[in-house]
Amino acid sequence: MPTQVVPIELGDRRYDILIGSGLFDCPTSYEQLANSAGHALVVSNPTVGSIYADRLVSALRQIYLDVRLVVLPDGESHKNAETLGLIFDALLSSKSDRATTLFALGGGVIGDMTGFAAACYMRGVPYVQVPTTLLAQVDSSVGGKTAINHPLGKNMIGAFYQPRRVIVDLDTLDTLPQRELVAGLAEVIKYGPIADAAFLAWIEENIDSMLARDKSALAYAVTRSCRVKASVVVGDEREAGRRVILNYGHTFGHAIEVGLGYGTWLHGEAVGCGMVLAAALSARLGLVDSAYADRITRLIARAGLPVVAPPIATDRFIDLMQLDKKSEAGAMRFVLLDGPGSAALHSVPAEIAAEVIERNRTG
Amino acid sequence: MPTQVVPIELGDRRYDILIGSGLFDCPTSYEQLANSAGHALVVSNPTVGSIYADRLVSALRQIYLDVRLVVLPDGESHKNAETLGLIFDALLSSKSDRATTLFALGGGVIGDMTGFAAACYMRGVPYVQVPTTLLAQVDSSVGGKTAINHPLGKNMIGAFYQPRRVIVDLDTLDTLPQRELVAGLAEVIKYGPIADAAFLAWIEENIDSMLARDKSALAYAVTRSCRVKASVVVGDEREAGRRVILNYGHTFGHAIEVGLGYGTWLHGEAVGCGMVLAAALSARLGLVDSAYADRITRLIARAGLPVVAPPIATDRFIDLMQLDKKSEAGAMRFVLLDGPGSAALHSVPAEIAAEVIERNRTG
Repeated sequence: MPTQVVPIELGDRRYDILIGSGLFDCPTSYEQLANSAGHALVVSNPTVGSIYADRLVSALRQIYLDVRLVVLPDGESHKNAETLGLIFDALLSSKSDRATTLFALGGGVIGDMTGFAAACYMRGVPYVQVPTTLLAQVDSSVGGKTAINHPLGKNMIGAFYQPRRVIVDLDTLDTLPQRELVAGLAEVIKYGPIADAAFLAWIEENIDSMLARDKSALAYAVTRSCRVKASVVVGDEREAGRRVILNYGHTFGHAIEVGLGYGTWLHGEAVGCGMVLAAALSARLGLVDSAYADRITRLIARAGLPVVAPPIATDRFIDLMQLDKKSEAGAMRFVLLDGPGSAALHSVPAEIAAEVIERNRTG
Repeated sequence: MPTQVVPIELGDRRYDILIGSGLFDCPTSYEQLANSAGHALVVSNPTVGSIYADRLVSALRQIYLDVRLVVLPDGESHKNAETLGLIFDALLSSKSDRATTLFALGGGVIGDMTGFAAACYMRGVPYVQVPTTLLAQVDSSVGGKTAINHPLGKNMIGAFYQPRRVIVDLDTLDTLPQRELVAGLAEVIKYGPIADAAFLAWIEENIDSMLARDKSALAYAVTRSCRVKASVVVGDEREAGRRVILNYGHTFGHAIEVGLGYGTWLHGEAVGCGMVLAAALSARLGLVDSAYADRITRLIARAGLPVVAPPIATDRFIDLMQLDKKSEAGAMRFVLLDGPGSAALHSVPAEIAAEVIERNRTG
């Protein structure tokens, strides 16, 4: 399978996403990244690090003067200021200067924390994403959003900061648990309804191949997802306009994650269910017909994602959504579907959102 | 005294510095800043907050829906991740959204922390600097450098992030302790030798008026300092090139601050002495004649700043300078004077730096 290259055109912050097999061990993956006098710090977690860190560190030792590894505790519950401090401690205790490159080896949590650490260390050092989950490959590869959580809100502290490169070695999906593969498919599916009706049809045809880990289907899905995301992000780097459509399903989804406690449902599972709710809300407001909302729901169900909201009380659900970053000055706003491959931000009265939650909830 | 306006031309990040008397109470100071549906959070410390916070909060209540105050513990030793967290706690506990503006009311520590908090909160909200020390008025007003300290290094964690406006009310200098006024003069003096020979001559003529707090002399000094800094910063926003000359005196100065323990000497005092050492190093390398170095030293002494290095062992002094951010891949680099109103970055062998320290040190 030839390596695919998706260029992200952001002027002096432009970079490439490389997508292929065997990229870890291929020297061209690292071309033009290294400052031979510089340091590299690989940031990973115990699960991914135990499988892949040795290979990445060995490859980087060929091109950097000093290569170190820091292993962070695993999981969203550790995506906080304290864990971020471990990256800074590792950088400063090895006297790493501005010619240091950080490598994020892991899923979205590792990517978010490593990117934010790179944004802040000495006010900005380069970093490279090496995403090892499907979710991170199709989501955090593009967009430059980095963040940590605060006890009062998810992703509240962060930066827009672009990587120098993204290296997607699809072989890492071989070791991904099935539940996480499915969660990643939620973000793949998202790109269809919001921006690419032809891709939506492709996903409907190929969902079973992807679930069976057919590598060429996954390669196509990752490449096209990155292209769609790039087309949305470029021109709206700081999320002032159209980029908001990428949050389709996320307002409901975040409320589910917080309402159940982080980690009860995976992010992708919450987004999957959130997309069902947002599609139902779109139909309720007459933006699409109910057959289209049902089509989206059917695909999400075929992927193995939840399509019924968990038992969170309506008032609490609404309350959690009002703290969401997309709410501005108190209004409730949702990304809604308004046609095949098309979405936009809409203000919605809380009663109607509540009605849709109640119609699509367990029990 | 008419209000001076120094525009900082940074494209879509452009802003104005307003410099004058009575600006706190003047509604035009806040024109075009407010989103009437938005929140404002004033960040201050006990010393400055007890004198000025009420006035600023009252003025802001005219234009923002919700105005709150958070008072941080005073001093450089609190410029850390823990104190930064207090700003995020205040923002999140009041459900502040992206339409929130932060106001930094205080000196450099408050400005650095508030600016960094604004850079990170929801990946970036607007902030306004209201500097109340001479040092902050001439230094952190321009440049967009924000940061906190790490136990292993000063200003190691931060961001380049521009304010929406800087409001310099010169009346705040009336309550500034004399030692801090003098420390601020170190940064004023700096702008002469590095970039503006005529300003250097003006400072020599007006140093006594400034020490006596003549308001029109101080207004001129602040305005011209901001203009010089702006001319250096614009076009090098991320500190890749010429901007480094603003660090004249700072490599030696940081080593003095760390070597003695933060707060033993004020930042401006350490920079004052650092400029003497850097001038001596410039003369030692033949970049300027020794008469010019002596002229700089005399002016720094007249301001009441220290001109002799404190008793820090030479090896430790050198070691502390090697962790400084301006060192890259181990080389020792200093901003040195190479003519009247001119400076540049030079690589220097450690032995020569050591020799200059030993010749200009106590005991």
